[in-house]
Amino acid sequence: MSEAEKPLILVCNDDGIFAPGIKALAEVASEFGRVEIVAPDRQQSAVGHAITMSTPLRSRSFQLDDSFHGQAVSGTPADSVKLAHDQLLKRKPDLVVSGINHGSNAGINILYSGTVSAATEGTILGYPSIAVSCTDYDENTDLSGAKEATRRVIRHVLNQGIPKGVTLNLNVPSGPLKGIRWARQANSRYVEEYEGRVDPNNRPYYWITGKLELLEHGENIDIKVLERGFASLTPIQYDLTAYTILKDLEGTELE
Amino acid sequence: MSEAEKPLILVCNDDGIFAPGIKALAEVASEFGRVEIVAPDRQQSAVGHAITMSTPLRSRSFQLDDSFHGQAVSGTPADSVKLAHDQLLKRKPDLVVSGINHGSNAGINILYSGTVSAATEGTILGYPSIAVSCTDYDENTDLSGAKEATRRVIRHVLNQGIPKGVTLNLNVPSGPLKGIRWARQANSRYVEEYEGRVDPNNRPYYWITGKLELLEHGENIDIKVLERGFASLTPIQYDLTAYTILKDLEGTELE
Repeated sequence: MSEAEKPLILVCNDDGIFAPGIKALAEVASEFGRVEIVAPDRQQSAVGHAITMSTPLRSRSFQLDDSFHGQAVSGTPADSVKLAHDQLLKRKPDLVVSGINHGSNAGINILYSGTVSAATEGTILGYPSIAVSCTDYDENTDLSGAKEATRRVIRHVLNQGIPKGVTLNLNVPSGPLKGIRWARQANSRYVEEYEGRVDPNNRPYYWITGKLELLEHGENIDIKVLERGFASLTPIQYDLTAYTILKDLEGTELE
Repeated sequence: MSEAEKPLILVCNDDGIFAPGIKALAEVASEFGRVEIVAPDRQQSAVGHAITMSTPLRSRSFQLDDSFHGQAVSGTPADSVKLAHDQLLKRKPDLVVSGINHGSNAGINILYSGTVSAATEGTILGYPSIAVSCTDYDENTDLSGAKEATRRVIRHVLNQGIPKGVTLNLNVPSGPLKGIRWARQANSRYVEEYEGRVDPNNRPYYWITGKLELLEHGENIDIKVLERGFASLTPIQYDLTAYTILKDLEGTELE
């Protein structure tokens, strides 16, 4: 297969171009095609689906190592995918992969995740897209299972495709892969969220902290699947309409 | 009714505490109860569901005018609601309202919207929550219709409640109110997204621009309802699982 015929895979993340996870992801992606990295030039965790509107974006080329080069964008994960699509790539990608994030993006974390938003942006733009996260926040953790799970999911997507409008959100425990299970987003939230402190000038400030609280007890929810040691794979979509509720309310007049 | 018995309404936005929209919203909310404003200390448009993790948050009291005071938070809309809930409010609010945003949050814009994310965060924390946006970006536009629509929706919510896990997303055209219609999120995306320029040092940079493209032609979609001159009211939820797809895929093994 010539270079031009190989699938083009856009690799992004939210931990920035120097995070070990993006290199691990580029390595797996390169088994399937030509890799282009376009990612934030710095750590952008928990930025959600933020896009940069009040300042212009810049990009600069970088060489990650002997194998990979790419472009570092002065913005968010969603910015990076948008700019890659509209300006930076010479042709349209066949696949968008985002990650490997250092830290889980399961349950309510999906909403806050820059990693997931980069993949969702890929889906919005019409590309099959996958977000990958490892549950361990330690950047030196064993990503072998995450890489193997990613390999299987990329193979599945390139062979079978993904329904339009759907993003695959993959979470993998640290260490060797035990298996992948389809799962839904767990109903969960954070509790005891902030720790108040006082600075040397006697002014208060607040650090975010908090524990994730599970609000349900299903078997096939992402957080439970991960607790059992399996990778969780959740198809997600970006039409937020609460259809059941809408159906109930449609007759209601608001006077 | 004593002050302590009145509903407590938390008012937030993403345009910051000095935007005219938040004052308009506080005025309407004060017809129903005691108002506490906790909002970003500066413009935070298009930040999506971003939360601040790498720096601590600060808050400072401010007096908006003779009627309203509040607390300005050095973070995002979602930060503001989280911090209000966990640290800043003396008691839990009965309602969270976010806006009035200067600019529409319909269709795909719902994903990028800080205004909507503040309300969604209210829902996650267990409070009935409403996001309000006026379709006109001009801060001096006629908000009379937006105020009247907000009044009707707040009255509806305080009387009837909202199902758990659901946020109401209200968009209103500028000028007098023609009526409110229930609607779903329009399938839409941005095209021609960036304008590339070259700075005086000959280095490229990119401004976001782009046009919203409608990808469907339903009657009860938010963007169409607004085009017909009505306010659109969309119940949204934050479980992103693509359930139909999940059901189809559950048998699939990934090897």
